[in-house]
Amino acid sequence: MTSQSRPAASPDGDPWLLTPGPLTTSSGVKQAMLHDLGSRDARFIAINAKVRERLLGIIGGEGFVCAPVQGSGTFAVEAMLGTLVPREGKVLILINGAYGQRMARICGLIGRAFEVLEWREDEPVDPAALEARLESDPAITHVAVVHCETTSGILNPIAGVAEVTARQGRRLLIDSMSAFGALPLDAGAIPFEAVVASSNKCLEGVPGMGFCLVKQEALEAAAGNAHSLTLDLQDQWQAMEKTKQWRFTPPTHVILAFNQALDEFEAEGGQPGRGGRYAANCRILVEGMRKLGFETLLPDALQAPIIVTFKMPSDPKFDFQRFYDRLSEQGYVIYPGKLTVAPSFRIGCIGRLGAEEMRAALAAIEGTLKELGVASGAPEAEAA
Amino acid sequence: MTSQSRPAASPDGDPWLLTPGPLTTSSGVKQAMLHDLGSRDARFIAINAKVRERLLGIIGGEGFVCAPVQGSGTFAVEAMLGTLVPREGKVLILINGAYGQRMARICGLIGRAFEVLEWREDEPVDPAALEARLESDPAITHVAVVHCETTSGILNPIAGVAEVTARQGRRLLIDSMSAFGALPLDAGAIPFEAVVASSNKCLEGVPGMGFCLVKQEALEAAAGNAHSLTLDLQDQWQAMEKTKQWRFTPPTHVILAFNQALDEFEAEGGQPGRGGRYAANCRILVEGMRKLGFETLLPDALQAPIIVTFKMPSDPKFDFQRFYDRLSEQGYVIYPGKLTVAPSFRIGCIGRLGAEEMRAALAAIEGTLKELGVASGAPEAEAA
Repeated sequence: MTSQSRPAASPDGDPWLLTPGPLTTSSGVKQAMLHDLGSRDARFIAINAKVRERLLGIIGGEGFVCAPVQGSGTFAVEAMLGTLVPREGKVLILINGAYGQRMARICGLIGRAFEVLEWREDEPVDPAALEARLESDPAITHVAVVHCETTSGILNPIAGVAEVTARQGRRLLIDSMSAFGALPLDAGAIPFEAVVASSNKCLEGVPGMGFCLVKQEALEAAAGNAHSLTLDLQDQWQAMEKTKQWRFTPPTHVILAFNQALDEFEAEGGQPGRGGRYAANCRILVEGMRKLGFETLLPDALQAPIIVTFKMPSDPKFDFQRFYDRLSEQGYVIYPGKLTVAPSFRIGCIGRLGAEEMRAALAAIEGTLKELGVASGAPEAEAA
Repeated sequence: MTSQSRPAASPDGDPWLLTPGPLTTSSGVKQAMLHDLGSRDARFIAINAKVRERLLGIIGGEGFVCAPVQGSGTFAVEAMLGTLVPREGKVLILINGAYGQRMARICGLIGRAFEVLEWREDEPVDPAALEARLESDPAITHVAVVHCETTSGILNPIAGVAEVTARQGRRLLIDSMSAFGALPLDAGAIPFEAVVASSNKCLEGVPGMGFCLVKQEALEAAAGNAHSLTLDLQDQWQAMEKTKQWRFTPPTHVILAFNQALDEFEAEGGQPGRGGRYAANCRILVEGMRKLGFETLLPDALQAPIIVTFKMPSDPKFDFQRFYDRLSEQGYVIYPGKLTVAPSFRIGCIGRLGAEEMRAALAAIEGTLKELGVASGAPEAEAA
């Protein structure tokens, strides 16, 4: 029995967020928000330039520019689709989870022609099937794919998708929301037109802005495409090039936090360092959960070190809401499942968490199972 | 000569922002951001409910609901127009400055039919002209107006506009971005369909979210109108009613700050208290600037206590960039003009500023004029 009287907590007194986001950030990131800067302030303008330049540095490559946008990651996804897909274009959306589905919903709402290619939530998208589809439909101008589908936590084969898309002469748009900064994405080696991500997630800033890294020639050609004023990345970028300022009131505090988060990202060794910590978190989590009898949805080869989906235990004493609530009371916030294929829950490996927090979370999980009288986390054996 | 060696600064060590925003906020508001909460956290859900309820309380009236949206104020304006004006609707936009112009630009980009009625930037919109136009064009379904046009700082006659719009059986959409919380807007007395404002400005939160207070029946009838997924206020509201959560990652830190800002707003006596402080700030500013020879663009009767436009002095020794830079070095950030009718600059009265800061800013302005060798702030006498 480990019914603790005081919850474990981050240095800021908050629960640890083992979720797809918002995530636990460092104290330094939050403290960077203790200042009010004007949007025309020279320091603020310099910080914006530095943030945009460093984001470009993460993907490397030549000829890319950075267009930031206010809002959550989905705002950036909609902005990318609305700005870069011309009104006479047609997008093929690769879907193996809720975020792929969301791109299809966006295209429908903003009036962009689209087709979908779908896989099960526990299957990666398949470059060979993509190639066959592109060969059979020359009207498709763009391909859109999710880098890591946080619905399941699956890693999609971005390099293969990019190679096929380029070979077929189409343009690739990547939603790398939950992977950017943790998984490699080398614009010098992998051909793509644009990628979107956000200030929160693996870069460990606070939520409130997204950004699109896009080939300058593509963005220049996108004038007049957008379905929106606020989500027009071409207009935003043009204005920032001219004035160094955001078109509309920037979330100044979020940007100050993001700048600090990028300092800490670099201090950790950039993508290899950040990705290495998350991979270690993921290994500790998966091994520990397996010891408790839990099963992951995905085989290890398909698992991105971002968020892990576990099948729901079959023990009738396992009540997910009680499990969730008790963990939360002990200072560990996990996440419900989003799968349509099987009952499940998720535990994240990202944010300002390390081996110590992962082990402490596992101890809390073990104690909570005992408290609930659950003998094992093992799920129902699947019917053959 | 008052070439100070150390700048005056807010308690957080930053310059005072005498601008239209981002603004100076209290230390308490910024400190509220030192926590990471999950988007499904019970405390966070309770805070969202409390914020939305208190925003509705500011306008009073019956049958309104609150739909928040990520992003700057312009995101909320676009969301209001895109959600509430049906595709077969037609908006008459009342324009006497850049924010009215922006609403017209939005309607053009999102594909909503619109007409404009324009006035000079130093003239309020005119309800009688509005009535004549509505009588002559029965196809107009909605009227859109800016409460306080921060282009000039002019107060538009919202009550008169609302009365005419209601009498003519049309629906009124108000952009009260820079006035909300400081100037009265009583939904029980003034008929309107929706108003948008943001977390920053007169409610003194940090920038990063806007909100629309809208008649529930109008929002319910708006399903399927929107041109966008992320800016669909109807979908956002429906989802929040069902799940108590935002549809897409909320700017959690911005919302924690906003909740604290609303505590401080209530402690100050709500709109009458907040508006009273700003009115005093404005009086001190205008009187002090007039003593230095400056002239306001607007007569006092048209001036909202939000931001004041001053005509550019005619003394050839007055170099605005040097004036701006020197004030900024001393800890007072003012704002350039946005007028098309005359060269000008602007000084704001809003944010966490009081009489003491306004007087100190005036002293810095006086000292800077002396430093520049400017005898008086008087503008060129206007040609008759």
